[in-house]
Amino acid sequence: MNVAITGGGGFLGRRLSQALLAEKGVGRIVLLDATPMGPSSGDSRVETRCANLLDPGVARSAVEAADVIFHLAAVVSGQAEAEFDLGMSVNLDATRSLLEAARATGRQPKFVFSSSLAVFGPPLPETVTDETAVHPRSSYGAQKAVGELLVTDFSRRGFVDGRVLRLPTVCVRPGAPNAAASSFVSGIIREPLHGKRANCPVDPDTELWLSSPRAAVANLVHAASLPGEALGQGRIINLPGITVRVCEMIEALARVAGRGVADLVSFNDDPGVRRIVSGWPARFDVSRALDLGFVRDHDFSALIRDYLARDESASAVRRA
Amino acid sequence: MNVAITGGGGFLGRRLSQALLAEKGVGRIVLLDATPMGPSSGDSRVETRCANLLDPGVARSAVEAADVIFHLAAVVSGQAEAEFDLGMSVNLDATRSLLEAARATGRQPKFVFSSSLAVFGPPLPETVTDETAVHPRSSYGAQKAVGELLVTDFSRRGFVDGRVLRLPTVCVRPGAPNAAASSFVSGIIREPLHGKRANCPVDPDTELWLSSPRAAVANLVHAASLPGEALGQGRIINLPGITVRVCEMIEALARVAGRGVADLVSFNDDPGVRRIVSGWPARFDVSRALDLGFVRDHDFSALIRDYLARDESASAVRRA
Repeated sequence: MNVAITGGGGFLGRRLSQALLAEKGVGRIVLLDATPMGPSSGDSRVETRCANLLDPGVARSAVEAADVIFHLAAVVSGQAEAEFDLGMSVNLDATRSLLEAARATGRQPKFVFSSSLAVFGPPLPETVTDETAVHPRSSYGAQKAVGELLVTDFSRRGFVDGRVLRLPTVCVRPGAPNAAASSFVSGIIREPLHGKRANCPVDPDTELWLSSPRAAVANLVHAASLPGEALGQGRIINLPGITVRVCEMIEALARVAGRGVADLVSFNDDPGVRRIVSGWPARFDVSRALDLGFVRDHDFSALIRDYLARDESASAVRRA
Repeated sequence: MNVAITGGGGFLGRRLSQALLAEKGVGRIVLLDATPMGPSSGDSRVETRCANLLDPGVARSAVEAADVIFHLAAVVSGQAEAEFDLGMSVNLDATRSLLEAARATGRQPKFVFSSSLAVFGPPLPETVTDETAVHPRSSYGAQKAVGELLVTDFSRRGFVDGRVLRLPTVCVRPGAPNAAASSFVSGIIREPLHGKRANCPVDPDTELWLSSPRAAVANLVHAASLPGEALGQGRIINLPGITVRVCEMIEALARVAGRGVADLVSFNDDPGVRRIVSGWPARFDVSRALDLGFVRDHDFSALIRDYLARDESASAVRRA
């Protein structure tokens, strides 16, 4: 099985490629990213390519040998709101370009598209189900919802064998804060664990729908392993997550790392971020996903421990 | 008020322009169509242009002076299913091109987009509401659903003042059968009224959601007159229609035009058409649309009489 991963230089892309290398029957993995990726994993099966998906030649060559395509590349929510045209290019045009490249292979490759809970917005039901209408309240959400429709129709037509995963907000992301409206969700845990202050731009009572990187990666791998018949025409899957209030996250941080660490979090409202994030749902009925074998995290403390176990730079705090 | 109508050579486009000429304050009307339109209405305010919307120059020049843009141009359902790439170009790319042209004016023009009940498909609730998720089961439906997302996001961003009308199946359309999966819906009434045989490719018990051309045009005009504040963020409106079974349509035809006319309808199953049409909903909760002042037809007989009253070529039958 040959694999192509767009956004392959991102943290999920890298973790996904590591997880795939441990799977049976995985041949070549092409990691494609618009920004240079630094040193590769050392495994000779992994090839890194720095190129722009908007170039049809790039898309075609990336997928020409792929049995499975993971399309993770995206301009994140805050940036797509600030730079509308860039978001349209990357989140919509590049998705379409990749779908056309996959179709052109004539081999109906599996196409795993990472979508997001940002396709939803008010008015929201108490619990989001597979039958809840999308109401994006950000250009990122609108562009992801367009991608969902395209992947579904390309699948119905037999051009690709698509599966759309609506990922919860992934927490705890390693590295630096980014332009996602959800960047603070990881920031208020990660930065204090590194001894740094972090601001929470939303109310402590705000509910979030979260997944650990571990569960997100396991679910991406699982999505690629499912036979198309298991999905039928319903190619869009709300992935499992856990519902947590921001104040509960801070309490869990205090339990795991101490009150002093938790006290590094301040609360200063940011209306722009609050407007986007407060429109996201935090309660889902994911029975279909669980029936299909997708996994979920146990509780929020597990997400913090998962981060500490993986991220070496946090070791000072972990030992403290 | 200056107006641009794409698909302006189509039957709805022409009727819409006639209706607009009777409104107060209408200045210039540009009718744009990809195919030559024949003689214009004779009103000096109407200009016809034969040009391709995919050319950005064409889109820009069509909307440069427009306060209201009606985007009716589309590749119909049967053709978009048979010619996928053509459907993507016209139904998706041209819509986006027109939205970008409208945005480029910097004047936030009203943008009335004709969408369709074809965005829906199984699984369907008993009654479709504004909160029902779209599940297109045709490429036409998927492309219209993408257009809905784009118009809504362009409106949220303040680039246009959009309104999306999900039209019921329009019946009775004059003229020749076309490549729409719904073409038979008008055909089984229109052709017999002209003394011709017509085939119904679906079961007589099939329920349909219908609008007369008169109500559809009145609702397009009304959509353009509504202030944006009346709509808020909910830019998508399921237009009123009437729910009718095919067998009830034939009975109404017999009542209005005689049993001999109704007997010209045969029933030979067409699986391709049946698969698409049976996935469309026929029952809607349109209370929001009615509250907003959109209108609906009284009953199906009124649709037949409306056709007879307008279409002179059917006069022989009307007098019979």
